[in-house]
Amino acid sequence: MENAISNLITTYHELNASVIDQLDEEPSPLTFFRYVAKNRPFVVRQAATEWKAYNEWNAGYLRKKMEGESVKVAVTPLGNADAVVKQQDGSLVFVEPYETTEDFSSFLDYVQSSSTKGAGDTKNVKYAQTQNDNLHDEYANFLPDIPKDIPWARIALESHADAVNLWLGNDRSITSLHKDNYENIYVQIRGQKHFTLLPPCEMPCVNETFLPRGRYAPTAHPGRNEEEEGRLQVALENEASEKVPVAIWDPDVADQNTTRYSYLANPLRVTLEEGDMLYLPAMWYHKVSQTAGEEGFVCALNYWYDMDFSGHFWSGNNFVRDVVGEEGGQGSMGSSVGMSGKGAGEAREEK
Amino acid sequence: MENAISNLITTYHELNASVIDQLDEEPSPLTFFRYVAKNRPFVVRQAATEWKAYNEWNAGYLRKKMEGESVKVAVTPLGNADAVVKQQDGSLVFVEPYETTEDFSSFLDYVQSSSTKGAGDTKNVKYAQTQNDNLHDEYANFLPDIPKDIPWARIALESHADAVNLWLGNDRSITSLHKDNYENIYVQIRGQKHFTLLPPCEMPCVNETFLPRGRYAPTAHPGRNEEEEGRLQVALENEASEKVPVAIWDPDVADQNTTRYSYLANPLRVTLEEGDMLYLPAMWYHKVSQTAGEEGFVCALNYWYDMDFSGHFWSGNNFVRDVVGEEGGQGSMGSSVGMSGKGAGEAREEK
Ligand SMILES: O=C(O)CCC(=O)C(=O)O
Ligand SMILES: O=C(O)CCC(=O)C(=O)O
Repeated sequence: MENAISNLITTYHELNASVIDQLDEEPSPLTFFRYVAKNRPFVVRQAATEWKAYNEWNAGYLRKKMEGESVKVAVTPLGNADAVVKQQDGSLVFVEPYETTEDFSSFLDYVQSSSTKGAGDTKNVKYAQTQNDNLHDEYANFLPDIPKDIPWARIALESHADAVNLWLGNDRSITSLHKDNYENIYVQIRGQKHFTLLPPCEMPCVNETFLPRGRYAPTAHPGRNEEEEGRLQVALENEASEKVPVAIWDPDVADQNTTRYSYLANPLRVTLEEGDMLYLPAMWYHKVSQTAGEEGFVCALNYWYDMDFSGHFWSGNNFVRDVVGEEGGQGSMGSSVGMSGKGAGEAREEK
Repeated sequence: MENAISNLITTYHELNASVIDQLDEEPSPLTFFRYVAKNRPFVVRQAATEWKAYNEWNAGYLRKKMEGESVKVAVTPLGNADAVVKQQDGSLVFVEPYETTEDFSSFLDYVQSSSTKGAGDTKNVKYAQTQNDNLHDEYANFLPDIPKDIPWARIALESHADAVNLWLGNDRSITSLHKDNYENIYVQIRGQKHFTLLPPCEMPCVNETFLPRGRYAPTAHPGRNEEEEGRLQVALENEASEKVPVAIWDPDVADQNTTRYSYLANPLRVTLEEGDMLYLPAMWYHKVSQTAGEEGFVCALNYWYDMDFSGHFWSGNNFVRDVVGEEGGQGSMGSSVGMSGKGAGEAREEK
């Protein structure tokens, strides 16, 4: 099947641009839907510059709005929440972050003061990255500052956003390559986000592998000083628990963990500046890094809309996965599980 | 790959209706585009009842408008233009019709007088079925009677119809299973058409096989009487000419010429009545039979819009073809040719 799979990827590239479309202004529902239909991303520069969030959100404002509130925080040693970690014996584990609940203001202090990566910096990295519609939950105080829906997306997709999330962190967090079963409108408010995007047909390139799950947890014997206090180590889930398929190829370290198809991938890269908007189509692989804004933090929002499982798109992507699995080159991917990274557990049957 | 292919077809069926949507009225561009995006057909009953064609076209009117004009006619012994014919040695040939140019009025006489299939009827079957934008060519006299575009299709697809065709024949013609690389809006004017539709993912069911080409031609020694005069026999193209991939499975004779996947097909059936409109999505297999209207003929129009080769749709369908080809179950389909039946020669690179 090697030819068929290579041909799929190269044909896709022949017929599709190798850059991300840039729109001058927000699209009409019909124009947006043309992108959804093609499952192609676009960026609208400066689309959110009239949002209250864009105009008002600075550290002081955020602190004031969230006075007395506490939030869930992902804590990791290296900014690697939901990421592959190599164990000392060389085996790979998909590791979720240690989760704490912290006073918002202290959390923001920590984020702002730890933004720059010092060489000898051993401090843990904190990222507010709950993806559970957190703007209607822990960050509800910010709701008045943002539109409750993206109008052209709501009209085109005939539904309200299924989840609206706030992301708050700094340069030290990286979201590793994964995909989600959602149409995603991503809006940059403070700082920059650097997206690396791969279309669903590049699934054969990303080396999805079933890995055991783990979670960072504080060591039983905390160390002496502040930097070390939170020292975390990977606690494996018990043997019996289901393994999860994880993309272990990293387009930024393209010569490691490859499949025979990785060299065919053509990652698209885009940086979102403050006020920019990205349409990140359903099932695209994305890796995201960030650069802090003026005040030492990065803040973004995203609107997740349900994707359409009918038509040929979902079943077609499943087919690619099945063929790759049956070919056996890279672990055997069952078609009933299809997620990795942040999307783990988002497979359709579990919604 | 058997599992992957079966799974593709069954997953598609699980996620998509097993009937054709019926709309109450013509869709908006956005609603239409939702169907295009999903590559799903729909019918709008009585959508063309205000068209002049619907209201005026009877045999007398057509004759008057076409007085003195001649038209191209496909002549076949059994109503089988662009169809698979079994030779005496059992081998299959893809046979195109004998083509004549006839006075429109005599052609229409012939069609009207030969509509009913008599058991002993040996008369040839005639069908006006040139698909070369014939309404801007030989049938241009009818242009004032029909819209030059379907407005919601034009807006959604951002293009004018690439071809508008008139089809004129009777009960005896059947268009055999094939697919086209066009978005198709099909409009019934007189009589009925009976469509059998299969989605592109059922490609593994239809047994596309490379066949030599042939063409009906009159015998060298025409017979004595009128019925026999036109006696046709298959003239094979020379050995060296390229073979064409043809769907040799017929959903109406489901136990013959099967592949191991044919039983998974779920043909959708719909009959268009006078004034009805069908959206027949790009790359859907369709087989079409007909029933004459009051005056013994069947007349329909169709608008072909260019399909979009970008996004994942075309490359995804190619992939299915390649996997089926590499599996080797049913001849080896190269991905650079993808058509059969009426669509032969419409493959993208040849446009
Ligand atoms: O902003 C990030 O760190 C990741 C965003 C993301 O993965 C998403 O919006 O799906
Ligand atoms: O009307 C027919 O006989 C066939 C129609 C057809 O194949 C088409 O419109 O593509």
